[in-house]
Amino acid sequence: MTYAVIMAGGRGERFWPKSRQSFPKQFLPLIGNKTMLQRTVGRLEQFLNPEEIYIITAEKYKDIALYQIPELPEENIILEPFGRDTAAAIGLAAILIQQKDPTGVMIVLPADHFIAEETRFQEVLQSAAAAAKIEHAVTIGIRPSRPETGFGYIACGQFCQDFAGIHSYQVERFTEKPDREHALEFLESGSYFWNSGIFIWKADLIRRLIAEHIPKLANGLQEIEDAVGAKEYPQVLKDVYAQLPKISIDYGVMEKAKGVIMLPGDFGWDDVGSWTALESYKKKDSDGNILEGRGVLVETKNTLVQSSDKVVATLGVKDLIVVEGEGSILICHKKKAQELKKVINAIQENGYKEIL
Amino acid sequence: MTYAVIMAGGRGERFWPKSRQSFPKQFLPLIGNKTMLQRTVGRLEQFLNPEEIYIITAEKYKDIALYQIPELPEENIILEPFGRDTAAAIGLAAILIQQKDPTGVMIVLPADHFIAEETRFQEVLQSAAAAAKIEHAVTIGIRPSRPETGFGYIACGQFCQDFAGIHSYQVERFTEKPDREHALEFLESGSYFWNSGIFIWKADLIRRLIAEHIPKLANGLQEIEDAVGAKEYPQVLKDVYAQLPKISIDYGVMEKAKGVIMLPGDFGWDDVGSWTALESYKKKDSDGNILEGRGVLVETKNTLVQSSDKVVATLGVKDLIVVEGEGSILICHKKKAQELKKVINAIQENGYKEIL
Repeated sequence: MTYAVIMAGGRGERFWPKSRQSFPKQFLPLIGNKTMLQRTVGRLEQFLNPEEIYIITAEKYKDIALYQIPELPEENIILEPFGRDTAAAIGLAAILIQQKDPTGVMIVLPADHFIAEETRFQEVLQSAAAAAKIEHAVTIGIRPSRPETGFGYIACGQFCQDFAGIHSYQVERFTEKPDREHALEFLESGSYFWNSGIFIWKADLIRRLIAEHIPKLANGLQEIEDAVGAKEYPQVLKDVYAQLPKISIDYGVMEKAKGVIMLPGDFGWDDVGSWTALESYKKKDSDGNILEGRGVLVETKNTLVQSSDKVVATLGVKDLIVVEGEGSILICHKKKAQELKKVINAIQENGYKEIL
Repeated sequence: MTYAVIMAGGRGERFWPKSRQSFPKQFLPLIGNKTMLQRTVGRLEQFLNPEEIYIITAEKYKDIALYQIPELPEENIILEPFGRDTAAAIGLAAILIQQKDPTGVMIVLPADHFIAEETRFQEVLQSAAAAAKIEHAVTIGIRPSRPETGFGYIACGQFCQDFAGIHSYQVERFTEKPDREHALEFLESGSYFWNSGIFIWKADLIRRLIAEHIPKLANGLQEIEDAVGAKEYPQVLKDVYAQLPKISIDYGVMEKAKGVIMLPGDFGWDDVGSWTALESYKKKDSDGNILEGRGVLVETKNTLVQSSDKVVATLGVKDLIVVEGEGSILICHKKKAQELKKVINAIQENGYKEIL
């Protein structure tokens, strides 16, 4: 059987102040009426039953997830006692899937990506699942459309096999986020793909890969697995999880693993990583402005305004992101949209944590 | 006797959203802890009794004025039924002063100016009052410090007379707001002064000047004067006032009157006409920013932030004015600070009047 594991534990800081620690990005309707998580689940429900869909998130988001996805069985919400990056989260999910189905295939994917072509998305994932069934570790690569320095890349090697009409390729290597010069090279070469963060493998295989490349994590996961079903499980999970190494699946496993294959994800993918990335999904007026909520934009160009309680009035400004949060207002130059972390840090230093 | 008439009916639109229709600029503590009106009254109380100080304003501001200046006799708040510009307001005040003191001198001055040297201010006004006692119409000119295009100017003529050590000069003419080229000429010539909007004359004299230059206004004022003390006075005031010509004292009288004299007001004057004008009275940090209220200004330069409820966070911006009002937020480029009227108009057109 095939299962999906939606990674929904992120803090979404680059969408502050709409995305807040108590209610992060994946639970917000950033595009359209449905939240990012609802859209993600909706895409998977085209070919999976709710019982086959898992969400892994932090304990504090359990109620939000259940409220937003009421059809999901409560036990399919996997709760991490602490954030320990993606390798630990995926390992924990793998354990729980193995309990149910020792030969189960898992599709791991983030909760907050945008997918334009849902039918193609489904086709690619089903081909990837077919590959995973015959013991491949599969990743989805996205053909780059710009010299993006915010993503990791996959160097694509030789053709491997055809899965239901979709070609797969050997992964030569994963590379970390490049500088601009390398990103340009990658773009021009035609043989580099963006690492989408979508992976497909058998739960059993990723457990073995973790054992090979992050033995400390594997040992912890084994302790957790041994306690599954016992009444002390919650305490064991908490105690062990606190000690797990904090490392990403990319850095900890994928960059080191041999024989990984890639399927090109030609389904219109975007990670919607910042306020400016969001703009392409919104309608602009003739001055390039986007106004959501109440506002008046006078002699204003190329500016995004999201208001909630208050009327935002702008005069003589351009290239701004203006977002009203519950107890806060962000005014950010668009070229700094990727650097919102600096604001988060300054807010913490100034003791205004209640607005984060 | 000498009386002061403080013009406090303005809407202060260039200080929106702090200055609102229900609570305009003159009633706000823009500089320091006291409101502009309180500061103005305080300066006058150095040499006048509260009974000699009048405030002319709109009916809706009566309670605010009384609350802010509790020592003022209630009858010294002159209420205009409608805004009819300065000539009508001054004419109405003149009538009421004449009732009390037919030969009274009146100092007319705006409620919302900044005066740096209060002792000198008092000396100049007392000299001006001495000149007014011998039937001069007196205006206070300010030596320009920049080629300001936002003020009217006074062309200064020959020396007239010394009043307690302060020289007075013939006014050659009043000129309206100049373009930049003329403003530069005026500045360089050394013989042009800014028109401060502070005038000193006998109530009786300004009534005669109005009769000479705005006969329609004079007729209306006569009807009002005839009704003073009668029980139908409030209704007469309302009916007649509605029909009075809407014209400024500068344009309607001063530009046409002969024999006006000017005393230089060398007491550190500023009309504090916009958010940017206010900045010189505030302490800036090393990036040129002013933060009042709660906020974090990251990679931000030369920006003024006033927050009240919400925390304002800025990132990568410069030269902005950010002011949080009760139901609104203004984000304005500093070079547009004089053009806030455009925002006010847009708000009205969009039906958000409740925030004005």
